[in-house]
Amino acid sequence: MALIVQKYGGTSVGNTDRIKNVARRVAEYRARGDKLVVVVSAMSGVTDGLIKLAKDITHLPSEREMDMLLATGEQQTIALAAIALHAAGIPAVSLTGAQAGIVTDGVHTKAKIQNISPSQVHELLDEGNVVIVAGFQGRTAEGEITTLGRGGSDLTAIALAAALKADLCQIYTDVDGVYTADPRIAPSARKLDEIAYDELLELAGAGAKVMQLRSVEFAKKFGVIFEVRSSLNDNPGTIVKEETRNMEDVVIRGVSLDKNQAKLTVFGVPDQPGMAAGIFRHLGDAAINVDMIVQSASHSGGSPATDISFTVDKPDLAKARKVLDDIRPTIGFLDVQADEGIGKVSIVGVGMRSHTGVAGRMFEVLGKEKINIDMISTSEIKISVVIQLAHGEQAVRALHQAFLG
Amino acid sequence: MALIVQKYGGTSVGNTDRIKNVARRVAEYRARGDKLVVVVSAMSGVTDGLIKLAKDITHLPSEREMDMLLATGEQQTIALAAIALHAAGIPAVSLTGAQAGIVTDGVHTKAKIQNISPSQVHELLDEGNVVIVAGFQGRTAEGEITTLGRGGSDLTAIALAAALKADLCQIYTDVDGVYTADPRIAPSARKLDEIAYDELLELAGAGAKVMQLRSVEFAKKFGVIFEVRSSLNDNPGTIVKEETRNMEDVVIRGVSLDKNQAKLTVFGVPDQPGMAAGIFRHLGDAAINVDMIVQSASHSGGSPATDISFTVDKPDLAKARKVLDDIRPTIGFLDVQADEGIGKVSIVGVGMRSHTGVAGRMFEVLGKEKINIDMISTSEIKISVVIQLAHGEQAVRALHQAFLG
Repeated sequence: MALIVQKYGGTSVGNTDRIKNVARRVAEYRARGDKLVVVVSAMSGVTDGLIKLAKDITHLPSEREMDMLLATGEQQTIALAAIALHAAGIPAVSLTGAQAGIVTDGVHTKAKIQNISPSQVHELLDEGNVVIVAGFQGRTAEGEITTLGRGGSDLTAIALAAALKADLCQIYTDVDGVYTADPRIAPSARKLDEIAYDELLELAGAGAKVMQLRSVEFAKKFGVIFEVRSSLNDNPGTIVKEETRNMEDVVIRGVSLDKNQAKLTVFGVPDQPGMAAGIFRHLGDAAINVDMIVQSASHSGGSPATDISFTVDKPDLAKARKVLDDIRPTIGFLDVQADEGIGKVSIVGVGMRSHTGVAGRMFEVLGKEKINIDMISTSEIKISVVIQLAHGEQAVRALHQAFLG
Repeated sequence: MALIVQKYGGTSVGNTDRIKNVARRVAEYRARGDKLVVVVSAMSGVTDGLIKLAKDITHLPSEREMDMLLATGEQQTIALAAIALHAAGIPAVSLTGAQAGIVTDGVHTKAKIQNISPSQVHELLDEGNVVIVAGFQGRTAEGEITTLGRGGSDLTAIALAAALKADLCQIYTDVDGVYTADPRIAPSARKLDEIAYDELLELAGAGAKVMQLRSVEFAKKFGVIFEVRSSLNDNPGTIVKEETRNMEDVVIRGVSLDKNQAKLTVFGVPDQPGMAAGIFRHLGDAAINVDMIVQSASHSGGSPATDISFTVDKPDLAKARKVLDDIRPTIGFLDVQADEGIGKVSIVGVGMRSHTGVAGRMFEVLGKEKINIDMISTSEIKISVVIQLAHGEQAVRALHQAFLG
């Protein structure tokens, strides 16, 4: 008899028929004797509808009140899921995040979980109930309702699994698991049976849209083994866990393409200590996340200077340009140029640690495809290159063929 | 500087424009220096939509889970109302019923308020906020979410007004106040400036659809003076309060017609002690509310017997017939006959206490209209007659003309 935490996202509970399907699946696990905690998101569309109502009133609604408003979405789903389980003959009790003991800090709309007091969940499980918990939400020590931000329901599930010392945490979604690449780009991509936390972190950071980084980080920190799998079929998914020795036998776990980056080049930055630091400090103050950075000798002016290129998330591009315009008089660089037509292609795998020559082979593959490499960055288990976006999918296919084909 | 509790029903907050209107009205009161607590219902249609989702899953959803589900409706409105007040430049904080300290018993879907701990409301008011409270809901001492049943938001407002010792409680609705009769029936009906609790109770019990009985009872019990008024205009409404001496100067406060009753006649009940009691005990056990009762000598059989007529709410008619069928063998009556074509017409007024001959005048008016009286019941401040429903509106018009014209 295992204790399993299952999480169902918005599309998996998108209408009453799908909620009944969730109940059927939960009933199957329960028939095997497992204890179940089920974390659910708001029905797809509900959160967007609520946001629209708030924006109808004002463009900048208070974050506290947005939490009050949006927390109702998950609360509706837990009640409906409990009702569906009852209809299937299964004792079930729904709990809001607050009732489930999920205590957060007071940073509304992106609260951090501080601790979980799962005594009521344990009690209800011991009485034989399936416990259904609202994802994405918690409460502060003072009783304020908070939400955890994007991907918050995954985080609820993983944090609950950690607090309850669950045997397994299953993240049900609309894909079968984690793939070696996006199958829409590389048709030969295949589902992975397992992946290391660090690999998933690098893939997610490199544009693979499986899970939010912080849920994976939380799982890694607390050693929560979880499975990403589909709510539409019974196929086993991908197990995400701490790296094991045999994982290094595979050089590359996956290839990803991030289309959401833009490149900024600052020309003619005076070649004096602290100038680059000044630029990035100001960008950081504006909460702009800078990913890759390349610095090269400038060909733009007479005096000693450098050109600095870096990438930011596309939605931050305008803000970043404004920061640069503002500091131009103090830093004294010559010009700024933006390029939205770039893509970042990454290969990820813990096997890189024990296999040499991976970078060389990657550049060779891209060279054969006549794809020009604009920027390079590497970590212990990832190599990323910035190329023209137009060649992005071609690069993914070629790299997948070479390393994973 | 007064402390005012305002309550806005579902149509008054039915869309974001109406919520903005509520914010405008609240802003006006606040500009006068008043402290405000605003109780809101779910936006009209929201509760029905949620009930439909639950019924899509099963016909008999758990009452606990229905409370969990339906409580989200009011929670959405409080957040949106707070956002609208912020947009109008007014500091405002929303509170769920639980957060506002409304503690109830554990009878889900029709919980009773046990006590209110308004310390957080007081604190927020003292900080200069408008406090917006979700109507219709509370929590048990154990933290379970409960709802108060039909008319629950009125009850929240009146109970909060009592707990906060508010100077005034305003119930905003889609009518201008309490009328001497339904204006759609009696065009000369007019809005009352004031009415006694007991009169409103009798009128509500007699079919006038102003407020649920228990909200008025609660207000009477705790001496909460409240005003029923329209959210669509600025007209003063009707003040509901303890009877004052000059209220007795008016003989009749209002005339009402209850179309929602049906009459059952049980023929040939053996004329033995306890037989009538047996019938009504069984009906009571089945939670069927019996209103008027008339007993007369039977003409139906040979041995000493009586005929007993009584009225029940129309929706209970089938259930009442079943109860009678079940007990027929033990009681031994001859037959049962149902009549759904009746109406109950009532005249209500504390002035009856000091004015004699009111009943005689009522019967005279109806006699002149050639309307036959089937049953009669009286209280200290009300006279009700059962007549053919077809003559109901004619009777209201004639009585209104005679007593209030």
